[in-house]
Amino acid sequence: MENCSEECIKRKIPANFIPEVINELSSSYKNMQGINHIAGINLPSRKEIALILKDIREIIFPGFAEKKIINLENAHYFIGDIVSRVYIELSRQITRSLRYHCTINKCSECDIYKQADDTAANLIKKLPEIRNTLKNDVVAAYEGDPAAKSFEEIILSYPGIYTVTVHRVAHELYSAGIPLLPRMMASLAYSDTGIDIHPGAKLGNNFFIDHGAGVVIGETANIGDNVKIYQGVTLGALSFPKDENGNIVKGIKRHPTLEDNVTVYSGATVLGDITIGHDSVIGGNVWLTESISPNTVLTIPKPELKVKTK
Amino acid sequence: MENCSEECIKRKIPANFIPEVINELSSSYKNMQGINHIAGINLPSRKEIALILKDIREIIFPGFAEKKIINLENAHYFIGDIVSRVYIELSRQITRSLRYHCTINKCSECDIYKQADDTAANLIKKLPEIRNTLKNDVVAAYEGDPAAKSFEEIILSYPGIYTVTVHRVAHELYSAGIPLLPRMMASLAYSDTGIDIHPGAKLGNNFFIDHGAGVVIGETANIGDNVKIYQGVTLGALSFPKDENGNIVKGIKRHPTLEDNVTVYSGATVLGDITIGHDSVIGGNVWLTESISPNTVLTIPKPELKVKTK
Amino acid sequence: MENCSEECIKRKIPANFIPEVINELSSSYKNMQGINHIAGINLPSRKEIALILKDIREIIFPGFAEKKIINLENAHYFIGDIVSRVYIELSRQITRSLRYHCTINKCSECDIYKQADDTAANLIKKLPEIRNTLKNDVVAAYEGDPAAKSFEEIILSYPGIYTVTVHRVAHELYSAGIPLLPRMMASLAYSDTGIDIHPGAKLGNNFFIDHGAGVVIGETANIGDNVKIYQGVTLGALSFPKDENGNIVKGIKRHPTLEDNVTVYSGATVLGDITIGHDSVIGGNVWLTESISPNTVLTIPKPELKVKTK
Repeated sequence: MENCSEECIKRKIPANFIPEVINELSSSYKNMQGINHIAGINLPSRKEIALILKDIREIIFPGFAEKKIINLENAHYFIGDIVSRVYIELSRQITRSLRYHCTINKCSECDIYKQADDTAANLIKKLPEIRNTLKNDVVAAYEGDPAAKSFEEIILSYPGIYTVTVHRVAHELYSAGIPLLPRMMASLAYSDTGIDIHPGAKLGNNFFIDHGAGVVIGETANIGDNVKIYQGVTLGALSFPKDENGNIVKGIKRHPTLEDNVTVYSGATVLGDITIGHDSVIGGNVWLTESISPNTVLTIPKPELKVKTK
Repeated sequence: MENCSEECIKRKIPANFIPEVINELSSSYKNMQGINHIAGINLPSRKEIALILKDIREIIFPGFAEKKIINLENAHYFIGDIVSRVYIELSRQITRSLRYHCTINKCSECDIYKQADDTAANLIKKLPEIRNTLKNDVVAAYEGDPAAKSFEEIILSYPGIYTVTVHRVAHELYSAGIPLLPRMMASLAYSDTGIDIHPGAKLGNNFFIDHGAGVVIGETANIGDNVKIYQGVTLGALSFPKDENGNIVKGIKRHPTLEDNVTVYSGATVLGDITIGHDSVIGGNVWLTESISPNTVLTIPKPELKVKTK
Repeated sequence: MENCSEECIKRKIPANFIPEVINELSSSYKNMQGINHIAGINLPSRKEIALILKDIREIIFPGFAEKKIINLENAHYFIGDIVSRVYIELSRQITRSLRYHCTINKCSECDIYKQADDTAANLIKKLPEIRNTLKNDVVAAYEGDPAAKSFEEIILSYPGIYTVTVHRVAHELYSAGIPLLPRMMASLAYSDTGIDIHPGAKLGNNFFIDHGAGVVIGETANIGDNVKIYQGVTLGALSFPKDENGNIVKGIKRHPTLEDNVTVYSGATVLGDITIGHDSVIGGNVWLTESISPNTVLTIPKPELKVKTK
C-alpha cells in the first residue's frame, strides 16, 4: 500500500466521463423548459441583492457599518457615495427582474430601463420616511422587551428589526409591481432570521416581532399599528379556492387583517381572510380561523396535564 | 486622560500570557481525545462543501447563477468546466470523509481514492435524473402555493426547494455509505432555511415543503409521492430503545412512513415508526403516534377558547 | 426599439437626484438620535465578531478548521498564532462595546482599554475549562441521539453544539458586564442555527439541544446538569411587571429554572420564574406556567382527534 498524501496524488478524471455527462446534461437542458434559464439574459443576483440591502441598511442606520466612521460633517459625502451605488445596482437588478418577464411579454427595452430607473429613484426617495417608520419599530422593541438594553443592541442583534427593515424596503418594490426581486430580498432576510414575511404583507407603525423564529406572515396579511407578535406565530391562509380547471386561484385576499394594538403570543396560528378586532390579545398556541371583535382576549383553556411521578 | 483614537494606541499582550495559555491548551489537547482532530488528516471542509453545492445547483438550474450567461451554444463548455470542478472537489471531500473513518479502521489509501472517485462519478451521472425529480418538485410548489408567481421565483427564493435540492444530492452520498459529508451538506442547507432533513430520509416525487421553518424530518422517514408538508412539522422518533448496557440502539427504523398523496399541515408532530395511509390529511397541530388508514382526515377538535372582553 | 445589452447602455443618474436625497437624509440624521451612530466612534463589527468566533472554535475543537493541518508537534505554534489574534481582536471589539457606553457615561479611555484587555485575557484563560465543558456536551449529544454516528459528526454538523459553543463564550462576556458584544455573538449563532439563547442564560453541564429550530432560552433562565431540550421549546417570560410610570421593569428574574436531569420535549412552552424539579420530564407541546416537583412526568392528554374518511 502506497502511503502518499492527498496532495501528492494527481487524480485523473476518467477519459470519457466528462463528454458523456455533458451530452446527457446538454440534451436535458434542451428539453426541460421552466427550470433552465438559458437565453442570454441573467436573472437577478442573490449576491448583488445582499449587497444592496447592506448599503440600504447603512443609509437607514448610519454608523452601524463595519468600517466607516461617520460624523455630521462628512455624512453627506458618505451618503452621496452610497446612494449612487444603490441607485445603479438596484436599477440593474430591477432591470433583470423586469426583463425576465419581458422574454414572455415582448416589452420594449427602453420601457424596462425607464421603469427600473424610476422605481430605484422612488425607493431611494422613500428612505427618509422608511427610516422614520423603523425608528418607531425600534422604540416599540425597546418598550416591549425587558431584555432590550439599548436601541443599539436592538439594531445590532434583533432578528425582528432586521427582517422588518428588509420588508419595508421589499414591500415598496412589490407595490411597484416588480417581480422576483422583492421575494428574493425577503428570502435573504429569512435565511438570516427564520422570519418569513411575504413582501406583499402590509405592516403598520410600531411593529414588533420578538425572537421571531418560525414567524410566517402571508402575502395578503394586513397589520395595523402597535402590533406585537412572538416567535412561532403564523398569519396564514386557510384554504385555497380552485377555478373550474382545478387550479388554485392566485392573488385573492386570503390572510388575516390585524387591527391596531393587537398582540399575538408565541405559537398562535391565525388563518384565513378574517379580522382580529383592535386591542385584542391572541394567547399562546391559539388556533383561530374566525374573526373576533375588538377588545377580546382569547386563550386556550388551562390544559389538564397528566402528572405522573417517576 | 489621554484621548487618542483606538488606532493610535499600540496595545501589547502581557509578557507571559501567551506562553502560559499555550501550555495549558497544549496539554489539554493531549488528554482530550474525541473533540480534537490532531493527526495530520483534515476533516471535510464546510466551506468547500458549500462551493460544491453551489456548483451542483448551477448544473441543476442552469442560468440562475451569479455571473455567467449561458445559451445552448456555449452550454457544453460551461457544463464541462463546472462538472470537472465538482468531480475533483467532491472526490477530495469524500476522501477526507472516508479517511477519517480509516484512521480507526486501517483501510488502504488506494481503496479510499477509488471509492471517492467512483462515488463522485456516480453522483454526477445521477444529476440529470435528480434534475428531473427537482423539476417536478418545482411544479408541485407552483401548483400548491397561491403565492407562487413563477417557477423562477420558486427556484430563486423558496427555502423548501433549496433544502430539497441539497437533500436529493446528500441522500445519494448517504446511500453510498459516505460518512460526515452528507450530514454537513444537510447542515449547510439547514443554516440557510431552518429546514432540518436528515440525509437518510427517503423522499418521493412531487414533494413540496411550504414555508418550512422548523420542519424536522428524521433519518429513517420514508415519504411517498405528492406529499405536502407545512412549516413546523416534525416527522420524528418517539422513543429510543436501549441495549443491555443502557446505550441507545442506533440504526433501526424509528421515523414515520408517509404513503402517497399525504398532506401534513403546520405544526403537526408525527412520531415513531408508524404509517400514514395514502391520501390522508394530518391537520395543523395534530400530535400523532399511531398509524392511520388511507383516506383519513385527522384534525384537532375545534378548541374551546376562553373569550374575555378587556 | 434599440436592442442593446444591459452592459452597453451607460445609465445616468438624473442630475438633481443625488443632491436632493442627500439633503433630506442629512437633515434626518441631525434630528433622529437613537438610530444614528454618527459620533466618530464605531460600534462593534458583526463581521469581526464572526471571525473571532471562528478562531475560538478552532482553539476549542482543533483540527476541525478549513486548511491547517495540526499535530501535537506544531500545535503550540498554531495556538500561539491564533490566541494572539483572538486577544487583539476581542479586546478591540470589547473596547468598542464599552466606548459606546462611555459616550453617555464619560469614563476614562485608559480604564476602557484596561477593562477590555483584562476581559479578553480572562476569556482566553477560561478556554480550557470551556473546552472541557463542551466535550461533555458533545458526549451528551452522542448518547442522547440515535442518529449521531460520531463525535466528529456532532461537532461538524449539529446546530445545538454550535450554538452552545458560542453561548458558553458569550456568557463569559455577559457575566463580565460587557454590553452589545455578547448579544451580537448570540445573534450570529442564531442566524446560523435558529436557536435563540440569550447570553445571560445559565447552562449546566452535559447540555443537549436536539435539532433546535425555534428553541428560545431567555436571559434569566437557569439550567442544571444533564438537561435535554428538543426543537421548538421556549423557556420564556410570562408577563412583564411595569413600574409606576408604566414602563417595563428590566433585569428581574423572569425565566424558568430547570433542575438537573430534566428533559423538555419538542414544542413545549415553559414560562415565568418557575422551577422544574430535578429528573422531571416535560412532554411535547406542554404549556406550563407553574413550578413542578422533582421526578414528575407531565404530558398533554392523548388528544381526541377528529377522524373522517374522505
